[in-house]
Amino acid sequence: MEVKITKEFIEILVERINEQNAKEVKEMLQDLHPADIAELFDELSTKEQSFVIDLLDNEISADILLELEEDDRKKFLKTLTAKEIAEDVITEMDTDDAVDVINELSEEKKDEVIAQLEDQEHAKEIVDLLRYDEETAGGLMGKELVKVNKDWSVITAVKQMRKQAEDLEEVFSIYVVDEDDKLLGTLSLKRLLTTSANAKVADVYNEKIQYVKTYAKDAEVAKVIEKYDLYEVPVVDELMRLVGVITVDDVIDVIREDAEENYQLAAGITQNVDSDDSIWKLTKARLPWLLLALVGSFIAVNVSQSFSDAMNLFPQLFFFTPLVAAMAGNVGVQSSAIIVQGLANNNITGSIWKRLGKEMLLAMLNSVVLAMLLLLATHFIMSTSYEISSTIVLALVIVMILASLIGTFIPIMLHKYGVDPAIATGPFITTSNDIFGLLIYFSIAKMILGF
Amino acid sequence: MEVKITKEFIEILVERINEQNAKEVKEMLQDLHPADIAELFDELSTKEQSFVIDLLDNEISADILLELEEDDRKKFLKTLTAKEIAEDVITEMDTDDAVDVINELSEEKKDEVIAQLEDQEHAKEIVDLLRYDEETAGGLMGKELVKVNKDWSVITAVKQMRKQAEDLEEVFSIYVVDEDDKLLGTLSLKRLLTTSANAKVADVYNEKIQYVKTYAKDAEVAKVIEKYDLYEVPVVDELMRLVGVITVDDVIDVIREDAEENYQLAAGITQNVDSDDSIWKLTKARLPWLLLALVGSFIAVNVSQSFSDAMNLFPQLFFFTPLVAAMAGNVGVQSSAIIVQGLANNNITGSIWKRLGKEMLLAMLNSVVLAMLLLLATHFIMSTSYEISSTIVLALVIVMILASLIGTFIPIMLHKYGVDPAIATGPFITTSNDIFGLLIYFSIAKMILGF
Repeated sequence: MEVKITKEFIEILVERINEQNAKEVKEMLQDLHPADIAELFDELSTKEQSFVIDLLDNEISADILLELEEDDRKKFLKTLTAKEIAEDVITEMDTDDAVDVINELSEEKKDEVIAQLEDQEHAKEIVDLLRYDEETAGGLMGKELVKVNKDWSVITAVKQMRKQAEDLEEVFSIYVVDEDDKLLGTLSLKRLLTTSANAKVADVYNEKIQYVKTYAKDAEVAKVIEKYDLYEVPVVDELMRLVGVITVDDVIDVIREDAEENYQLAAGITQNVDSDDSIWKLTKARLPWLLLALVGSFIAVNVSQSFSDAMNLFPQLFFFTPLVAAMAGNVGVQSSAIIVQGLANNNITGSIWKRLGKEMLLAMLNSVVLAMLLLLATHFIMSTSYEISSTIVLALVIVMILASLIGTFIPIMLHKYGVDPAIATGPFITTSNDIFGLLIYFSIAKMILGF
Repeated sequence: MEVKITKEFIEILVERINEQNAKEVKEMLQDLHPADIAELFDELSTKEQSFVIDLLDNEISADILLELEEDDRKKFLKTLTAKEIAEDVITEMDTDDAVDVINELSEEKKDEVIAQLEDQEHAKEIVDLLRYDEETAGGLMGKELVKVNKDWSVITAVKQMRKQAEDLEEVFSIYVVDEDDKLLGTLSLKRLLTTSANAKVADVYNEKIQYVKTYAKDAEVAKVIEKYDLYEVPVVDELMRLVGVITVDDVIDVIREDAEENYQLAAGITQNVDSDDSIWKLTKARLPWLLLALVGSFIAVNVSQSFSDAMNLFPQLFFFTPLVAAMAGNVGVQSSAIIVQGLANNNITGSIWKRLGKEMLLAMLNSVVLAMLLLLATHFIMSTSYEISSTIVLALVIVMILASLIGTFIPIMLHKYGVDPAIATGPFITTSNDIFGLLIYFSIAKMILGF
């Protein structure tokens, strides 16, 4: 806690590592949290990292590996044999983390590693967890938990709990089950510490608890934990039997990834990429959206061309096409982002017509303000004729209103039919608004100016 | 847990409420979690809500109020007198929640409520917490914690802990302090349950712990809790004295709000609004960005107009302006979103030049693919002359490369100078790319076609 990781610290550390000075390296790292050592690894070569991992206790090394970025961990695991991974890494991990790491291995190495596990109980639990989809409660849960039978006395429960808790890092809840392993409730540690030893578990446990089924989606699990302010949530199978526990730290990752995914989709990026990913992976995530935008814009170009008759008489109309497209795009993105976020937070309720009405009012208000300003600007700065500039601003108002209605309507419809509405917030909305925007813009101009 | 909230359930509930049938309403609600009752409140009128709140125990009512949306809670609190708020609501709440609620009251009502609090200890703690900025660790923390002196024996510690824990809902960590209240470490409940009663606290506590200072920003607190997978983090003052505790559920809200704020900024929306906010509030959040986009687009229009000489010879150039602007905007948003997200997650390290180089390569790759497709499309679909279409696609490639460089560079620069880079992801990037994009597009066309 008191060690500050400064540039000097890192320099000295690297020096000591290269001198193979095990004793001093160990001393330098002993007060650091594995998460901090994992951060330090960014500054070390793979060879230097190996030196550190070999040097430290397996338990700490395993924690460091867990804290590394997935790509770095994969790279590191490739340098180890299946036996080393099984004995030095997996054995030291909680079952949920062990499963995550095993899932990152190639199919053959996966089997090899499992075959090498010595603790049969641990191995059985891991194999059991591997069959769940990674994005469900089953894929998130761990097997580490303390459970007691409802018919036990409190003193027996404490004894059992001590035995079961031996291998656990921390215990927050003790689960109460019946003889068939069905989940009945929880017994809090506090209760255990403040209750008479002669009481029966059945008399003191809390039966008002939240749980999730193994097949619940990870986002649902996150919602339950968030809604009820839980530290962990028990997972039950179809028969209500207690099969695992999900802790809040695993769920924080889900929440962050969820938010990031929505954000990236809005920016026209599929898959969860980050800036250190390979150019190939980034291209795969970005190019499809650009292609979509290109096709849409190409249609918009053709819309524009189909009104080319107006070019001789009213060339100004064509200078304004990027402005019309940009404003339609911006207002559409604003509307859709609010709806998508509302859908994600489950607070889009009530009539869709009321919502569209409100959005229309809002767009009208905003666009009229902007139109007035644009009218002044065209008059005083560009000295556009009054006839043309009023045509342009009238068209702008209508385009903006329609764009905001589209931005509201499309995500709601997508959501209704089970499609992730977030895909409608980025290039999709801006591009469709480009096309409709220009079509409406030129049509209105044609009606008023008559070309 | 077993109660399903169906439409029928709500209908019957409303009926019973309107019949003033206290007994049955109570029965219907008794197995529901306060968070579920809060959700039900969306379907009830303020009068019906009041009936329920008056009916239930103060403790549950207070929990329900906490789970309501801020606007709904404010509305409800307005119907209560200061005395009622103090006695029925605040008294039942943990200090951190109490402070949040009090902060939502008007200045005068705030003072009245505090004056009405009967429990002087609770009142003192609340007043103490009120002086911290809401967006710091001090503003997030609660005073509910269990602490023991390092010189006590384990048996004394357990006794003391039982006493201190009486008013607490749940206890996860016991904090160990010295005679000056300085934080030394933690004693886990598990340890307490599995250790000999004669041991001294000083011998069994864990001194490797994480903590935050009162003035730490809420986002920093979230990072500490996330990084070290904590359930709660102790808060210390400048003298390292233990003053409070922040639990993970408070931090989840911070993480979600942070992510939502970035997302909204990217969509051109300031302030954290949701779709149920008033038109006025939504306009305040949205109009400034639209105005910025309008000004930018207006400049783009003038850029376009300044090349009007080309209109007679090469009218096609002007049909393509929305396409060029759209592609520049899309690629710029993609680049900036990845950088902003990387900055938020603290993994933008290393040389900025290397990063720009990679982004350039990526943009080149993507834009060449798109340019080839566009070339084919213009040739076969629009029968544009080869000279003009090759000019357009060449310009498109250069515009896209520059747009992606701008999208990478601006957020990094903003971050470097302490400005939130997320403001650079929305209309700001698309609009500046519109202007530069069109300028470059026409300049290249002029060079090649010579008008």
